[in-house]
Amino acid sequence: MHTPADALESPRFTGPRTFARLPLVADLEGVDCAVYGIPWDGSASFRAGSRFGPEAIRAASVLLRPYNAEQRTAVFGSLSVIDHGDAPTVPGYVEDTFERVAAFAGRIAQAGVVPLALGGDHSVTLPQLRALAAVHGPLGLVQLDAHSDLWDSFFGRPYSHGTVFRRAIDEGLVDPARCFQAGMRGTLYGPADVQQGHELGTEVARWAEIAPLAPAAFADRVRARVGTGPTFLTFDIDFFDPAFAPATGTPECGGPTSHHGLGLVRALTGIDFVGFDVVEVAPQYDGPGQVTSLLAATVAYELLTLLALRAV
Amino acid sequence: MHTPADALESPRFTGPRTFARLPLVADLEGVDCAVYGIPWDGSASFRAGSRFGPEAIRAASVLLRPYNAEQRTAVFGSLSVIDHGDAPTVPGYVEDTFERVAAFAGRIAQAGVVPLALGGDHSVTLPQLRALAAVHGPLGLVQLDAHSDLWDSFFGRPYSHGTVFRRAIDEGLVDPARCFQAGMRGTLYGPADVQQGHELGTEVARWAEIAPLAPAAFADRVRARVGTGPTFLTFDIDFFDPAFAPATGTPECGGPTSHHGLGLVRALTGIDFVGFDVVEVAPQYDGPGQVTSLLAATVAYELLTLLALRAV
Amino acid sequence: MHTPADALESPRFTGPRTFARLPLVADLEGVDCAVYGIPWDGSASFRAGSRFGPEAIRAASVLLRPYNAEQRTAVFGSLSVIDHGDAPTVPGYVEDTFERVAAFAGRIAQAGVVPLALGGDHSVTLPQLRALAAVHGPLGLVQLDAHSDLWDSFFGRPYSHGTVFRRAIDEGLVDPARCFQAGMRGTLYGPADVQQGHELGTEVARWAEIAPLAPAAFADRVRARVGTGPTFLTFDIDFFDPAFAPATGTPECGGPTSHHGLGLVRALTGIDFVGFDVVEVAPQYDGPGQVTSLLAATVAYELLTLLALRAV
Amino acid sequence: MHTPADALESPRFTGPRTFARLPLVADLEGVDCAVYGIPWDGSASFRAGSRFGPEAIRAASVLLRPYNAEQRTAVFGSLSVIDHGDAPTVPGYVEDTFERVAAFAGRIAQAGVVPLALGGDHSVTLPQLRALAAVHGPLGLVQLDAHSDLWDSFFGRPYSHGTVFRRAIDEGLVDPARCFQAGMRGTLYGPADVQQGHELGTEVARWAEIAPLAPAAFADRVRARVGTGPTFLTFDIDFFDPAFAPATGTPECGGPTSHHGLGLVRALTGIDFVGFDVVEVAPQYDGPGQVTSLLAATVAYELLTLLALRAV
Amino acid sequence: MHTPADALESPRFTGPRTFARLPLVADLEGVDCAVYGIPWDGSASFRAGSRFGPEAIRAASVLLRPYNAEQRTAVFGSLSVIDHGDAPTVPGYVEDTFERVAAFAGRIAQAGVVPLALGGDHSVTLPQLRALAAVHGPLGLVQLDAHSDLWDSFFGRPYSHGTVFRRAIDEGLVDPARCFQAGMRGTLYGPADVQQGHELGTEVARWAEIAPLAPAAFADRVRARVGTGPTFLTFDIDFFDPAFAPATGTPECGGPTSHHGLGLVRALTGIDFVGFDVVEVAPQYDGPGQVTSLLAATVAYELLTLLALRAV
Amino acid sequence: MHTPADALESPRFTGPRTFARLPLVADLEGVDCAVYGIPWDGSASFRAGSRFGPEAIRAASVLLRPYNAEQRTAVFGSLSVIDHGDAPTVPGYVEDTFERVAAFAGRIAQAGVVPLALGGDHSVTLPQLRALAAVHGPLGLVQLDAHSDLWDSFFGRPYSHGTVFRRAIDEGLVDPARCFQAGMRGTLYGPADVQQGHELGTEVARWAEIAPLAPAAFADRVRARVGTGPTFLTFDIDFFDPAFAPATGTPECGGPTSHHGLGLVRALTGIDFVGFDVVEVAPQYDGPGQVTSLLAATVAYELLTLLALRAV
Repeated sequence: MHTPADALESPRFTGPRTFARLPLVADLEGVDCAVYGIPWDGSASFRAGSRFGPEAIRAASVLLRPYNAEQRTAVFGSLSVIDHGDAPTVPGYVEDTFERVAAFAGRIAQAGVVPLALGGDHSVTLPQLRALAAVHGPLGLVQLDAHSDLWDSFFGRPYSHGTVFRRAIDEGLVDPARCFQAGMRGTLYGPADVQQGHELGTEVARWAEIAPLAPAAFADRVRARVGTGPTFLTFDIDFFDPAFAPATGTPECGGPTSHHGLGLVRALTGIDFVGFDVVEVAPQYDGPGQVTSLLAATVAYELLTLLALRAV
Repeated sequence: MHTPADALESPRFTGPRTFARLPLVADLEGVDCAVYGIPWDGSASFRAGSRFGPEAIRAASVLLRPYNAEQRTAVFGSLSVIDHGDAPTVPGYVEDTFERVAAFAGRIAQAGVVPLALGGDHSVTLPQLRALAAVHGPLGLVQLDAHSDLWDSFFGRPYSHGTVFRRAIDEGLVDPARCFQAGMRGTLYGPADVQQGHELGTEVARWAEIAPLAPAAFADRVRARVGTGPTFLTFDIDFFDPAFAPATGTPECGGPTSHHGLGLVRALTGIDFVGFDVVEVAPQYDGPGQVTSLLAATVAYELLTLLALRAV
Repeated sequence: MHTPADALESPRFTGPRTFARLPLVADLEGVDCAVYGIPWDGSASFRAGSRFGPEAIRAASVLLRPYNAEQRTAVFGSLSVIDHGDAPTVPGYVEDTFERVAAFAGRIAQAGVVPLALGGDHSVTLPQLRALAAVHGPLGLVQLDAHSDLWDSFFGRPYSHGTVFRRAIDEGLVDPARCFQAGMRGTLYGPADVQQGHELGTEVARWAEIAPLAPAAFADRVRARVGTGPTFLTFDIDFFDPAFAPATGTPECGGPTSHHGLGLVRALTGIDFVGFDVVEVAPQYDGPGQVTSLLAATVAYELLTLLALRAV
Repeated sequence: MHTPADALESPRFTGPRTFARLPLVADLEGVDCAVYGIPWDGSASFRAGSRFGPEAIRAASVLLRPYNAEQRTAVFGSLSVIDHGDAPTVPGYVEDTFERVAAFAGRIAQAGVVPLALGGDHSVTLPQLRALAAVHGPLGLVQLDAHSDLWDSFFGRPYSHGTVFRRAIDEGLVDPARCFQAGMRGTLYGPADVQQGHELGTEVARWAEIAPLAPAAFADRVRARVGTGPTFLTFDIDFFDPAFAPATGTPECGGPTSHHGLGLVRALTGIDFVGFDVVEVAPQYDGPGQVTSLLAATVAYELLTLLALRAV
Repeated sequence: MHTPADALESPRFTGPRTFARLPLVADLEGVDCAVYGIPWDGSASFRAGSRFGPEAIRAASVLLRPYNAEQRTAVFGSLSVIDHGDAPTVPGYVEDTFERVAAFAGRIAQAGVVPLALGGDHSVTLPQLRALAAVHGPLGLVQLDAHSDLWDSFFGRPYSHGTVFRRAIDEGLVDPARCFQAGMRGTLYGPADVQQGHELGTEVARWAEIAPLAPAAFADRVRARVGTGPTFLTFDIDFFDPAFAPATGTPECGGPTSHHGLGLVRALTGIDFVGFDVVEVAPQYDGPGQVTSLLAATVAYELLTLLALRAV
Repeated sequence: MHTPADALESPRFTGPRTFARLPLVADLEGVDCAVYGIPWDGSASFRAGSRFGPEAIRAASVLLRPYNAEQRTAVFGSLSVIDHGDAPTVPGYVEDTFERVAAFAGRIAQAGVVPLALGGDHSVTLPQLRALAAVHGPLGLVQLDAHSDLWDSFFGRPYSHGTVFRRAIDEGLVDPARCFQAGMRGTLYGPADVQQGHELGTEVARWAEIAPLAPAAFADRVRARVGTGPTFLTFDIDFFDPAFAPATGTPECGGPTSHHGLGLVRALTGIDFVGFDVVEVAPQYDGPGQVTSLLAATVAYELLTLLALRAV
């Protein structure tokens, strides 16, 4: 079983940074979950820089310890988790990049290992879904995000971090009837933007609608929607208010605190998650305290915990 | 009708930064609202730098889109809004500056256009009130701020960002009986400071008093106070907690989150606002994520929405 | 009576920075409370830098004014408070440093003056407790912190910012039955970490348990635990969520807002506090808005207020 | 004649930022030089972010005054210069972007106006050269840069900021016999990289070779190479040492100081420049002093001066 | 004799920051040199913030040790130097401020103590010169600066950081025939700006003229100009290139390195300096390494050394 | 032979950061040089933070390519170089740490592999010298540094980053007659500090003495001193001026540019170097451009080149 380096043998600030100080392993044999990066920001519509997201999240993640006290569960030690390195990309060429990412994610999925990707801009979810749907069929989707990313195109072009779930629906990678998109807020182009989800058959719950819900009630709504089938969870760090996650491509004011948002994630037990990602960390926009990267690492850890809770 | 540049023709990071990518227009004909800057920080008592506030708020504002989904209202497209450039100032000379700002704001008000100013330190509200009161008579006032700015003088001198509303009352620019000042918190010089508002006839509601109120209840209190007459809304960005708005002249810990504060602003419908400002953004004190400027731009957008809601 | 420099004679940004612009005084005669720094970060397990914490907190503290409006109490003017400089340290040598700090704190305590220390990493609480217990006997403890700091050793060595309260219990400096540790959150090494406090006889209330409590209910629990005996209050700035206090050694996501946390502190009236510290500010990790240092200074001011409220 | 806003009427920190406070003008009639931005960073191989280069250079450029004392020449007032806005781009799609940029630059060149572009990563020089060669035929080239950008492909793909001059030669846009590339330094893939220029027929002078030359001697070498024909000057800000220009995509240590580099530019009189660009400013990597953007604005001003000196 | 705190008793990062860890002393008896701050930035034409210059220079200055090895001279220990606190100012009111500064500086000069002021924007030199000329008569002037600051007015107003030496000449505070202004560079409004000094009777040596001189040759020119009478040295930190001093109000690219500039200062022996200042440090624009403040502190130390060398 | 990851297969921003993208290898078989980190800052006298130096230098080093064009030598491909991870340390306990570092370095040296360490504060050179002297006997020393680090003790304690070479001489690890210490500058405690080297038998060349030398003349002096025996080269990044290396513990103004300093290093051919380190990078003090870390990585690369040139 792969576990993190022992903090009692070497301090947490020791050695090349891998996710949570896990070993950097290429072999997927006996692995429960493979954490990897997708350093691509070529599809961002405003701030670039999330190609350095995986590096920054790894750097912050060395503070993570094996036991989740909030969930009363050992994560490392119960699951065998590795840092699987980064998927290859081709700067400036989105289709080449998607092909390489899909192949990389596909190898993980085909090995029966749950992938947890660190973005990268949100467009990187598309090749992951291609890889996972090839193994599992159309997936359920839980999306925590300030934006629904359902636009049809951007400058007449299909791929952008704002079109990713429209593409996933078009390609049959997700089942809209099993999609729950939560947290949307901020300005839009017009009332049609609000209707997009409804027309496509997904459920889009704006933050104003989620904010008053207790975590358990939120999770009940999610479970009711995604059901028992294989499901992907995508977490855009801009779900959080910019005070908690300033380092992101298209921040929107008025979102949840970290305490609130982490509580919602922790409630999402009992779902058959077959893959995860945490995206849109652009660390150039963090202050020296690197709070965005630390929060993204913490979210990733909570996602691993959801997996560990099912593994028990 | 003036509207922002189309983000489907050129990405949001394109071109010189005007507020919300609106056209930079000198002619006030047919305009509903003119957004302009007042780059003055000569009256700040602690941190200077808000002379660069207008530039920073404009830079962040390019993320704003035309439709306010929270308020179910088109802002741009419903109102004709322009970026009207900046009022001229004379660095180091407060009285010269006030004269020029009052003349600049006066031309807008006299054209029947609602001005929305981007500060600048809070002293810049005084020349705006002079210009608007000349057109509308004594105004009602809604102030969201961590400080009441009611001191009588500063080092024996009349003008400072801490004396602005005392001056406005002295000069008859606002009607104290129609003033509502909300959000005050932080340390003071003595109990007399708490009584100032009462003695001057305004209503000062400290943050501790506002914090428990639902937005609708807050708005009811405001409306009850300011009534149906012409009213000015001044928003000091230090109203928010420093985690949400670090880049300001005299931050005070323990204030509202952005979610909370924006909700209060959205509730302020049905008031006859004849002018607005958003002040005290000192962008040198923001981190690279520029959360203060983004929040200030968002507040300005919500103020425009209040105007759009009445225009409908 | 020692009071801060008059902000109406010289602006707040004037002169060498002492805490709250108090005089820098060596003589303890007639003093109620002595604020001093402990610039030591040699026992930090992750980020170093808190040796510059006292400098940064002093720089931010010049914004503090004499009257606490939330508590309706004059702080300066009611208490005689001084800036007593910094305790000497020996970089790289923890035992030498503890000896010097204990001697420095001891002189304050023996003069009947309440010490309020600005850290420094959390290890600096140990020599303070040694000095205070020598005067007062075993102390009660109120700790607000994201970590319980109860580990037994670190790399086989006794002193670390993570072992400080284990050492204090071992040495009989605090009475575990009168210890209340609140705010713990984040990942741990295993379930045993959760049990540590119970086994040692202290009360450890995780943040998840405190979060739903109203300030008065929280304070009741604290008072019930610490009783009427002499008590020390230690405030680790990482108690707050990293959005509010990014500049700290081992941040943990999901903590309280400043509004929430300050409210809890304000409720802690009626306890016989004989010493205080505010620790773990590592200002290199703050953004230019210096929100962590400002919040630490505000916490220190609220602690002084608790003293003033008893002095009345 | 278009000239900057008068700094005696409004301070330099006033109004939306255009280059050197020049008017934002769409009409090319009577214009000598059009400054415009190309906000594209999709072809950067390491740090992204130069899409915000034009904004940052404009912000710094407001410090520029009309008269170049070093060259004893009025720049503004002698030339009619405008800020022509930004070329449109399509984030994520390099070929679409090049098409739009070439069309934008082509309209300038066809109007007989000299374009000066602000990048953007270095790939943006290619569409400019396409537009200019269509008007002037194959061009001479003066390149000041830490890299020769002559690689043949990047991941099997033709367009990158590292392949731009290979493409320009392949497409016949520049005449290799009239190309002078100066300032190359830093590590390479192998000795073949050093030979690339020689094989392609251009002249590549590494920084080690240029460093000892006096400005006049340097300029003589350049003039001898580029001759009297129409010539393009491209200035990659990474030409300067990272201490002077930290905010760039692929910095290389050991380059010139600003004093040295500006001296070299000033010596380049007497060349028939038909276009200019200053590229690779990624302002996220600048400190708060924004020295890279200021230096880029200064370089652009010196290029305008070279034009003004010929116009006299 | 006043000397700095002993770094072998307490580390350099200990205690409230005074200049070079000198004692904060109000009494001028037996003092050779009084270092004090002038926290005023109300006359800056571009970036504000130098009101925090004295704080930042003091913070950096704690690295200074007593012996100047380059000049083979003990500074502290040979001279009795104190930190004399800050002159009072009135934010927003330049004439009130000048009056207070002149009174403060006058008390020092009248006590026969040499003042060394830390700015503050360059306008603060005027009240110093008023105070010193009242004691010594018209002064010689050595100015190291990127700007000559000889403009006649700014927006029709007399006081600005760009008019200070015109005012000093107008008021007869300096003798133009004994003024040497060195280091001017950057853009100007027109050729008349270059002639200003000549017409006023001062000597203005642009950086292009000084750059090739060896330090000794430079110093010979200065001494030939200022002669043996009482002389003031004013050092604007923008004399250095922005890579070395980014944190200043109006930076100009292409200036000296710190090695070069410090060498010039060290050569200025044998002049009867009766006062000094180091101005225009706006620390908000420094990176976390605080290189500008450190360089300003180093310049101040070299100025003290010039005094020590004469005292021997 | 170990070589870096191929930048044509995955972009340079891909994967966990190892030095120059070299493989992370524990096995020393067939290795020429092992690069490793020593994350220790417990002996720093001013700014802490260099425990994160190895992480930051690795992050910057991914820009390094295999071929050194300045030296016309392949580095990677000619030498087999690995990233060997970090030596273990015990935060707060210098002697424990030195023991672990010496054991770690000893294993490398005993395997006949040349170690290149990335610090950490300068005290970490001592355990390296202990390990290397155990294998090679007393070593020659080339030190490039702003400080000679020859003090005898610090607060009565033997270990500090300011005492390291005194200890090395005391312990017989280096032969003073074969030591060349170059670059010293800045303030000292007294003239005795200048004499220390002479009395201990080493050669200390201040920067003022080295600055005028051509690289070849400098190297001749070094070679004449260190001779043909086994020699260690220690490079303190504060050798460079703070504009080039702001992120260091005790910066001293007035040092070399990167162009100058790298030229001196490149000249040091023909010496039998058996170990190297690059120390005192405290990345918290770098701006976002990370120029210090990039320069440190470049220095390390030049040191590897010196090894490669001998290996040929």
